[in-house]
Amino acid sequence: MPSTSAKRLVRQIGSQLLQKSVGPRQDLSPTLWDMAYDKSDLTLHGVKLQQLLERYGSPLHVLNTEKLEKNANAIMYGNQSDQLLNVYYSYKTHPVPRILQLLHSYGVGAEVISPYELWLALRLGVDPQKIIYNGPAKSDESIEIAISKGIRLLNINHREELDRFASIARQVGKKANIGIRLVFSKGWSGQFGLGVDTGEAIATYRQALSMPEFNVIGVHCHRGVLFEGIDDMADYLQGIKNFLDELHRELDFHPEILDIGGSIAVPTVRPFTDFDKTLSTTFRIEVREPSPQAYPTLEEFAEFISQDLTSYFQRVKRPVPELAVEPGRAITGNTQFLLSRIIDTKESLETFTYGILDAGISVADIVQTEFHQLFPLEQKTHESEELYCFVGPICHMGDTLYPAWQLPQLKKGDALAIMDSGAYFVPEARAFSFPKPGIVGLTAAGESFMIRNSDTFESLINMDLLAE
Amino acid sequence: MPSTSAKRLVRQIGSQLLQKSVGPRQDLSPTLWDMAYDKSDLTLHGVKLQQLLERYGSPLHVLNTEKLEKNANAIMYGNQSDQLLNVYYSYKTHPVPRILQLLHSYGVGAEVISPYELWLALRLGVDPQKIIYNGPAKSDESIEIAISKGIRLLNINHREELDRFASIARQVGKKANIGIRLVFSKGWSGQFGLGVDTGEAIATYRQALSMPEFNVIGVHCHRGVLFEGIDDMADYLQGIKNFLDELHRELDFHPEILDIGGSIAVPTVRPFTDFDKTLSTTFRIEVREPSPQAYPTLEEFAEFISQDLTSYFQRVKRPVPELAVEPGRAITGNTQFLLSRIIDTKESLETFTYGILDAGISVADIVQTEFHQLFPLEQKTHESEELYCFVGPICHMGDTLYPAWQLPQLKKGDALAIMDSGAYFVPEARAFSFPKPGIVGLTAAGESFMIRNSDTFESLINMDLLAE
Repeated sequence: MPSTSAKRLVRQIGSQLLQKSVGPRQDLSPTLWDMAYDKSDLTLHGVKLQQLLERYGSPLHVLNTEKLEKNANAIMYGNQSDQLLNVYYSYKTHPVPRILQLLHSYGVGAEVISPYELWLALRLGVDPQKIIYNGPAKSDESIEIAISKGIRLLNINHREELDRFASIARQVGKKANIGIRLVFSKGWSGQFGLGVDTGEAIATYRQALSMPEFNVIGVHCHRGVLFEGIDDMADYLQGIKNFLDELHRELDFHPEILDIGGSIAVPTVRPFTDFDKTLSTTFRIEVREPSPQAYPTLEEFAEFISQDLTSYFQRVKRPVPELAVEPGRAITGNTQFLLSRIIDTKESLETFTYGILDAGISVADIVQTEFHQLFPLEQKTHESEELYCFVGPICHMGDTLYPAWQLPQLKKGDALAIMDSGAYFVPEARAFSFPKPGIVGLTAAGESFMIRNSDTFESLINMDLLAE
Repeated sequence: MPSTSAKRLVRQIGSQLLQKSVGPRQDLSPTLWDMAYDKSDLTLHGVKLQQLLERYGSPLHVLNTEKLEKNANAIMYGNQSDQLLNVYYSYKTHPVPRILQLLHSYGVGAEVISPYELWLALRLGVDPQKIIYNGPAKSDESIEIAISKGIRLLNINHREELDRFASIARQVGKKANIGIRLVFSKGWSGQFGLGVDTGEAIATYRQALSMPEFNVIGVHCHRGVLFEGIDDMADYLQGIKNFLDELHRELDFHPEILDIGGSIAVPTVRPFTDFDKTLSTTFRIEVREPSPQAYPTLEEFAEFISQDLTSYFQRVKRPVPELAVEPGRAITGNTQFLLSRIIDTKESLETFTYGILDAGISVADIVQTEFHQLFPLEQKTHESEELYCFVGPICHMGDTLYPAWQLPQLKKGDALAIMDSGAYFVPEARAFSFPKPGIVGLTAAGESFMIRNSDTFESLINMDLLAE
C-alpha cells in the first residue's frame, strides 16, 4: 500500500511537470467538419446529432454526403474546371456499397484488392474501364473475370504472377491490360511490388513486354507511408520520373496510364508517437491535436501532381498518359463520424473518472494509434471540467479508446462524436460481444437516410447452423 | 545499395549467431491434437484434412468435437466421478452458437458480458440458473431481463451499478441475485471490479448487503493474467480465502456461490516476448515452441481448486458454496484449427520466400502475439527445407502471420493448419476485403457437419441499403 501511494504520487508530480512542457490540448474547430454548436447542441447541416441518435440508436456512424462530394471533386479537379486526375477509390478503406455508389456517381472509379472487391465493383455497375485490380492475393477465378471483362488495369504484384496471369489470358482468349507495381524504398523487400533499386522492376517489365498475352500499359507506384506535404510528394514523383526515363531508355516503353497510388493523409488525424502514448496512458496527459492548416489541401495536392507530371512529359516530349490516383482515407476519412453514448461512469482512485462507452476497440480501435477529435453532443459550459478515461464496453483490459480527455462533467446517457471514422473503422470492425453500428447519411439539406443497418442480435447468428 | 547489402550481411551474421543460442524449433506432436500423418496426409479421426478443404472450401475452421467434450468434462470432474466444479463458459471467447449448444449439452453454463450474449444464452435455451452476467457495460434493458428471468448471478462491476440495478429491481418487483467483482492486484485500478486492498470491495459489500433489492449471494474474482501453474493458482486462491475471512469477520457474510473466474492457459500456446518478436521479424529465426507437458492438465487444475477450497471451508467450519469457474480458452482453444491454402509464393532478396495465404490478420491476428503450431497438410519429406515468411492476402504491411517458419518446399495450392484457433480467432475476425471462413465440426467417428457457413460475397452486403 505505501509503495503504491508513493508510485502514484511520483506519477502525479511527473504528470504536472510534463503537462507544462506539452501545453494544453485545444479542441479543433467543429467548422472543419461543417459542424456547429447551436446553443448547446452539436449540429451538422442544421440537424442536432442527438436527434439522429434518438432516431437511429447508438452507436451510429454519420456520413456527411456534401463533404464526400467536395472531397472527390477536389482531388479530381483541384480548383480548375477541367479534370486533372482520374480517381480510383481504394475500396478496402471504407467498403460501404451506398457510399461507393455515391463516389461512382461523382465520376470516381474503383481500386480493388480482392475477389470480393472486384465482385462488388461489378455488382455496383462500375464500368470495367474504371476498375484497377491490385494486391498480392488475386485468385485465379478473379483474374479470369478481370481479363474477360477487360478492366482498365491489372497490376502485377510479384514476378510469379506473370506466368499465372498469362496462362489465364490464354484460356480466356483475350489480352490482359497490365501494369507493374513498383517499390521505391531502398532495400525494402516486402510482400508488395518489385524493387526499382534492385533491378527487379525493370527485369519484370522486360519479361512482361516480351509476353504476347499482355498489353503492358501501366506503371503502378504506391508510397505506403503518408505524405508529409508537397515537398515529400515532389521527391516521390521525382523517383517515378527517373524510372519512367529508365523504362523509356532501356525498353522504349511509355505508359498509357500512370497510377501513383494513394497515401494522402487526413489533416485532422495525426498518428501517435510513442511519447504521445506514454503521456496519455502513463501520465494521463491529453495528447495534442494536429495542425490541419499546416497540411496541403486536396486541391493543392491535385494541382501539384497534375502540373508536375504534365510539365515533365511535355519537357521530355512524350505524350501525357492518364494520370491516376488511388486515394482512400483522403476522400472518405473526414466525411464520417461515430456517435457513442456513455453507458455508465466509474470512479477511480486516480485523477480521472472512467467513462464507459457503448463503442469500443471492436469498432474504433484506430483511435488507439491516431488522434481523433472528440466532441460532446451537448456543450455543458456550466459544468466543471473533469479528466476522463474513455473505455469501451468489452471485458478486455485493452478496451481503452481515450486514456485522457478533459470535458465538462458527463453523466450516463450523454453522447460523444468520435471524428473521422470514414477510413478503416468500418472494415476493421467486428462484432465482439456487441453488434456493429449502422451508418446514416446526412445531406446538405439536412435529410437523413439509412446507408447500412446496424447488426441485430439475430443477424449476428445468421450464418450459423443450430441444432434443434 | 552498398549500405543495404552491408546491413543485410550484418543481419545474416547476427542471425547465425543468435540461431545457435536459441536452438532449433521442434514441431509439437500432432498427437497433442489427436492428429496423425497417414503416409503424407495430416488426418484427424481418420479423415484427411485436405478432403475437408476440398469439400468445404478454404480457409476453414475445423472443430474436434471429441476434444471439446473431453475438455469440458476434465474441468467439471477432474479425474473423479463426482462433479467438482460448476463451469460457466466465457461466451466472448468463442461465441459460436452450435459449439455453445454442444457445451451446454455436456452440462456447462454460460458466462455472458453483454446484452447480446445474454440474449444468445436465453435463445439457446440455457437455464437462467446456469447464467452469470459480468462486464462493465450492462444496459438497463439487459439488467431488467437478467433480474426478471432470475439468472444465477449478476456481478456488480463498479459501485455506481448498485443504485442503477436496485432501481431496476424495484421496477421489476423482484430481488436480484448479485455478486461483486473483486480485484486483487495491488494498486491496480482499471475499469473492471473493485479493489480488495483499497477497501473498495468491502465497502461495496457493506452497501449491497444493506439494500433490500438484492440477494447478495456471490463473490466474483477474475485473475486476468494467465496462471503459470498450480503454485500461481494457490497464491491466487489464498488471496480469495483471506478476503472471505474478512467478509465473514466484518460483515458476517458467507457466499452461496464462489466464482473464481478463468485465466487457465492453453498448454500448446505461448505468448511471445519482445525477444521472440525481434528474433522472428528482424533476424528471421523461428520462435521456439512451448513445453505443453510442463503445464498442469485441466484435471489437475480442477482437482486442486476443488480440494484447496473445500478443505478451507471445512477448516473454518463454513458450508462449501457452489464452486464456479469461467474458463474460455482452456475449454475451446485447442479444439479448433484453421486450414488455409497458399495462393501464391513470392521470391525475396532475403533468405526467405513469401508464402501468401488466403487467411491473414483479419481472421488470425492472434498468431502475431502468441505461438501457434503450424502443420502442412501434406508432409513432403522428400523436398528440401525452405524458410518461409507467411503473409495474409491483404494489401497491408502488417498482414504477416509467421515471419519465419521452415518447411519442406511448398507450392501454390498447398495448405497449412494453424492450430488452436478456438479462442479469440472467431470474435476478433472481420471481413477485411476477404470473406470470413466457416466452421466445420468433425466427430470421433469421422463425420463432418457444418457449424457456421463462411461469408459469401452477397452476405457481406446484406445489411446495406443500395440505391437502385
